[in-house]
Amino acid sequence: MAERVIIKEVAARDGLQAQPKHLTVEQRMALVAALAETGVPELEIGSFVSPKAVPQMAGTDEIADNLPAVDLAFSALVPNMKGYELAVRADIRCHAIALAATEEMNQNNIRKSLEDTFVMGEEILDRALDDGVAIHAYLAVAFECPYEGAVPEALVLEQADRLMSHQPARLVIADTIGAANPAAVQSMMQKLVDRYGPDRLGCHFHDTRAMGLANVYAALLAGVRQFDASAGGLGGCPFAPGAKGNVATEDVVMLCESMGYHTGLSMPKLLQAVELLADMIGAPQGGRAHTWLSKQCA
Amino acid sequence: MAERVIIKEVAARDGLQAQPKHLTVEQRMALVAALAETGVPELEIGSFVSPKAVPQMAGTDEIADNLPAVDLAFSALVPNMKGYELAVRADIRCHAIALAATEEMNQNNIRKSLEDTFVMGEEILDRALDDGVAIHAYLAVAFECPYEGAVPEALVLEQADRLMSHQPARLVIADTIGAANPAAVQSMMQKLVDRYGPDRLGCHFHDTRAMGLANVYAALLAGVRQFDASAGGLGGCPFAPGAKGNVATEDVVMLCESMGYHTGLSMPKLLQAVELLADMIGAPQGGRAHTWLSKQCA
Repeated sequence: MAERVIIKEVAARDGLQAQPKHLTVEQRMALVAALAETGVPELEIGSFVSPKAVPQMAGTDEIADNLPAVDLAFSALVPNMKGYELAVRADIRCHAIALAATEEMNQNNIRKSLEDTFVMGEEILDRALDDGVAIHAYLAVAFECPYEGAVPEALVLEQADRLMSHQPARLVIADTIGAANPAAVQSMMQKLVDRYGPDRLGCHFHDTRAMGLANVYAALLAGVRQFDASAGGLGGCPFAPGAKGNVATEDVVMLCESMGYHTGLSMPKLLQAVELLADMIGAPQGGRAHTWLSKQCA
Repeated sequence: MAERVIIKEVAARDGLQAQPKHLTVEQRMALVAALAETGVPELEIGSFVSPKAVPQMAGTDEIADNLPAVDLAFSALVPNMKGYELAVRADIRCHAIALAATEEMNQNNIRKSLEDTFVMGEEILDRALDDGVAIHAYLAVAFECPYEGAVPEALVLEQADRLMSHQPARLVIADTIGAANPAAVQSMMQKLVDRYGPDRLGCHFHDTRAMGLANVYAALLAGVRQFDASAGGLGGCPFAPGAKGNVATEDVVMLCESMGYHTGLSMPKLLQAVELLADMIGAPQGGRAHTWLSKQCA
């Protein structure tokens, strides 16, 4: 039987959160419904963040109240304990928390020190353990930071150990700015898989430098079997054609299935969701292999 | 000291040969000059093929007579013994010959049986050994054939053994239609490197399915250090935006250099050559990471 690769679809959160075009809650519900139809096993629906800070994510509680009747793991990003409580109140049982690996990224992004960010993350992790809520803890800018440059592998491994001692359901190593190369990915993920096994690890890649699929392959070689991906590669800036965002779900599915892994996703349904997304955003969407995949499914 | 990766630039041959827009000999000379300026160590200038069959390559002898005064290895494709003799007469001392791995591809492409193609290839290899001419022998459609589908690895390894017994300067495993996945690449190239060492092996990837860089990484892991690449990713059909051709030289350079390999190419000069190519073709050119690379070099 084919080995399974688990894809977590993040277009409705990481994809939408930076778009200049703000979708309505109804549009976001339609997107979540279309993505749920693809067969993806995990789906991030939005974030419980201040609507003043991120208006694109306002109304995530409404989306949580109207989830499609599909048996899959819905999740949401929570920026802090308040967000955690809102998500719990909305009956979301899997939350993502993000902690940047560098001092400067934390200071610039959330005006907190690295240490304060980790303490907050640990409080949420401990609370979630008591509440029986699963947490995906993201280590952001784990390879390169836009402020500090290259991030030492040893530092990330130490931070991973620290977070793992608070028992997240998953630790996700995130190349937030799409700067990782596959050799660095394979080296780091091999060390983490050796320490923790593959079941509690994931990777989150951006495709800014077109190395997204090479990085997925490198992580697969290291034993990683859980990947974030965004339908259509949404997450880049729509004003810079070709500046890709998250690694596209359809690219990851194609890569994995071509090597014999099973993802459970339907490519035609995935491309339909990408088309819906393009209509809503008002600009073409699609991963690196869009032309070829579209022909295959025509 | 950084380990070296040798790139053979094929835009002026594989890139141009299928373009509906035919460049003049003068334009092709300007392109060869611009590519030679990038610091690339190997450069394919065209092919000695019938101008009736491939008008895009007419006048390659003129280009050979007017090579830029840059110290690098210029080469040309020769389809048969007549082409070999024309290339020798033009003082080209490194020739590429291409042999498709499947019966149907040979029949459809050059109206010859697989066996006849290999016999012809062996005759050229033996003659070149006597003449002191270096041959790069390409095994085309080495992973998947558009007519026969998946190509068994064992078949390609047998064909590789057969060709290697005639001592080509390099055996190049070519994913002609861009269908290979990195697991297949790593498996096959590891076996070939184990048998023959890396110095006489190369890979030629197309990026049709966006797995080009993942395949380069897989081949690097297997020990391969010689890669064909095409400036701007030229080689796809300009009427299908996003349908990429050869893996782009700039993408391969970025991947290799980001992992600490030394290619010797100047990225700004490479992007200048891509711009020149775009002007000549009359359509935007550029690899998968074009947006990001352009910003870096702006």
